[in-house]
Amino acid sequence: MIILGIDPGSRITGYGVIAQDGRQWRYLDSGCIRMNTEQALPDRVKTIFAGVSEIIRRWQPTDASVEQVFLAKNADSALKLGQARGAALAALVSNDVKVAEYTARQIKLSVVGTGAAEKAQVQHMVMRLLNLEQSPQADAADALAAAICHAHAGSNMSRMAITGLRRGRGR
Amino acid sequence: MIILGIDPGSRITGYGVIAQDGRQWRYLDSGCIRMNTEQALPDRVKTIFAGVSEIIRRWQPTDASVEQVFLAKNADSALKLGQARGAALAALVSNDVKVAEYTARQIKLSVVGTGAAEKAQVQHMVMRLLNLEQSPQADAADALAAAICHAHAGSNMSRMAITGLRRGRGR
Repeated sequence: MIILGIDPGSRITGYGVIAQDGRQWRYLDSGCIRMNTEQALPDRVKTIFAGVSEIIRRWQPTDASVEQVFLAKNADSALKLGQARGAALAALVSNDVKVAEYTARQIKLSVVGTGAAEKAQVQHMVMRLLNLEQSPQADAADALAAAICHAHAGSNMSRMAITGLRRGRGR
Repeated sequence: MIILGIDPGSRITGYGVIAQDGRQWRYLDSGCIRMNTEQALPDRVKTIFAGVSEIIRRWQPTDASVEQVFLAKNADSALKLGQARGAALAALVSNDVKVAEYTARQIKLSVVGTGAAEKAQVQHMVMRLLNLEQSPQADAADALAAAICHAHAGSNMSRMAITGLRRGRGR
């Protein structure tokens, strides 16, 4: 199974691709789609949509994992973040990629083992879990963390069914 | 020229399609794409994306017109509105429809003749300008108003070039 993690933002959208085989996973790709904030909104939406579509074409993921956002800092940044998220999700669903959403807490719990982990700890564990020599760019690391969370949730599904734990939505 | 007006919302996305021939225009279609707010976000994004794509397939518009949003009421509604806008815009740009954005003031000025018009006046003038017997649903009327504004801006382009008026972006 190929999992695409996406961390949409109004300026930078991070992505990370991992392959999962049972309880094993390996790093395939990660990076950023950068928006030119000087551009008009339709052009920025096109950049995200085309960028995510290109990654899907390249890696053919079956599943995508995105951090769930409940509230942004303020209405202005929320609108911009929402537009970026809407464009990224549109690229996923229009290419028939199944999308699972996880809370920040679920992702941290899955990657670090505690839902209250610092951002730096998450990045460190992403590096270790995927045997990377360098730390990926921050947004790419967040996207990889979302992908790991989904891989983890998938491999724990039978256990979850027994214990009744609910680790994520959309599965 | 076929113009598609879109009024994206987190629950209802209105659309309106008009044909323009010089200074003449005529009504072709209008309606709403309704989201099931009980559904997960990826499914709602899919509803908007697929709905807008279907209208594009049916009417083959060359241009789209969308009201520009600067600020929503609060961060929560801004995020939801942004996600809907991002999905609708993604459907437009990925189908190579040119998107123009107009402020609410520009749309009211174009349709009613004053930038401070009430919503009811806009709906009334949309009905009159397009020779409709019934008032369209509110969001569909807003979408038609955006389309009329774009048609109007287009037919005034030569005059605008002379007077140096700037009526809209994205053209």
